[in-house]
Amino acid sequence: MEINLSSVGMEKGRQYETVITTLSPEGKRNAAPIGVICTGKDSIICRIFKGSTTLENIISQKEFTVNITENPQLFTLSTIDNLPETYFDENNSIKNIESYFKCEVTDLIEAVKRSDPIKSDSKAIVIKAKVTSHVINKNIKAINRAMGLLIETLVNFTRIDMVDEKQQEYYLGRFREAKRVINKVGSKEEQKAIHEIKKELIKKGYSP
Amino acid sequence: MEINLSSVGMEKGRQYETVITTLSPEGKRNAAPIGVICTGKDSIICRIFKGSTTLENIISQKEFTVNITENPQLFTLSTIDNLPETYFDENNSIKNIESYFKCEVTDLIEAVKRSDPIKSDSKAIVIKAKVTSHVINKNIKAINRAMGLLIETLVNFTRIDMVDEKQQEYYLGRFREAKRVINKVGSKEEQKAIHEIKKELIKKGYSP
Repeated sequence: MEINLSSVGMEKGRQYETVITTLSPEGKRNAAPIGVICTGKDSIICRIFKGSTTLENIISQKEFTVNITENPQLFTLSTIDNLPETYFDENNSIKNIESYFKCEVTDLIEAVKRSDPIKSDSKAIVIKAKVTSHVINKNIKAINRAMGLLIETLVNFTRIDMVDEKQQEYYLGRFREAKRVINKVGSKEEQKAIHEIKKELIKKGYSP
Repeated sequence: MEINLSSVGMEKGRQYETVITTLSPEGKRNAAPIGVICTGKDSIICRIFKGSTTLENIISQKEFTVNITENPQLFTLSTIDNLPETYFDENNSIKNIESYFKCEVTDLIEAVKRSDPIKSDSKAIVIKAKVTSHVINKNIKAINRAMGLLIETLVNFTRIDMVDEKQQEYYLGRFREAKRVINKVGSKEEQKAIHEIKKELIKKGYSP
């Protein structure tokens, strides 16, 4: 079967939330939540901060596994700490995962992750990789943050006229942060939607 | 075909974000974003604030249409104002919508929406309804807010140790709000995940 990341809903140019699993030179397995940008039907890039186990493992092994899942537990455990050894399959994907694909590194580039508001000074490496195999155990779409952020922005929009000035400022801050992320990872339609909310906020007299 | 809301991913007891379309006694069409709770394979409830056009139309017509969509534009336009007349199909669903189902009201109950942090004093009506027909034009899962909120909570979790105290308080406020919503609309797994993040924040010395 030809590899085509669109089979898990990944479109060229957009970023998806995944759990990347890697292996250390000593054979220790690691899992971490990583945003992966689809750059073609069988290619991706991701930026990973220096000092992370995932980056060390990818540099030494030149390969890694991208797990596509909607499982809240996997995102949570891999963010808080690491997945227990029993969660890993022999081939270093996550056991019973909805979908996973194996990647081979094609390029490693020094980069500063300027788009991140908190970690803007941190050094990162951009990893370019080719997908060498793709397994789909269950039909699933890779998670993208834009639609969830848009829905939360709309919920806040319905409340902004009912709250005090301090809470309005809070909602406007939330709006700006959502807009930043949607413009980075969202579809054209989602970007258009957040722009329309901005125009509407201005019409109401706010400064979004 | 037997009606079964699980065909659009709706599970009993959970709330999904939809666009409800209604008709006024004068034949004017209305669309509004409404959270709908699935109460069985062919039954739902929703709470709607008094004074809204949607509620007036549902009370007078005793029927309404629930549109299931991932279209950012439909959620945005129906929140900001109303959908233009051209967006509606003759049968009062939204044209080219991924899926929609028609509902007949079975019960109307006075209620105060206590769970809402902003509109807690507002009077609302709980509408119980039976699904009388269901059309699926495209495979889709109804939007639920929990997973998006969990992902945003995890993003903030990775940043909380790097920011100043004021920003930490902001993240903790975001955490509490996400936890409230996830406990209301999320799956058992999502609720378990947010609880684990809470334990981890406490372990780090925060007061989530």
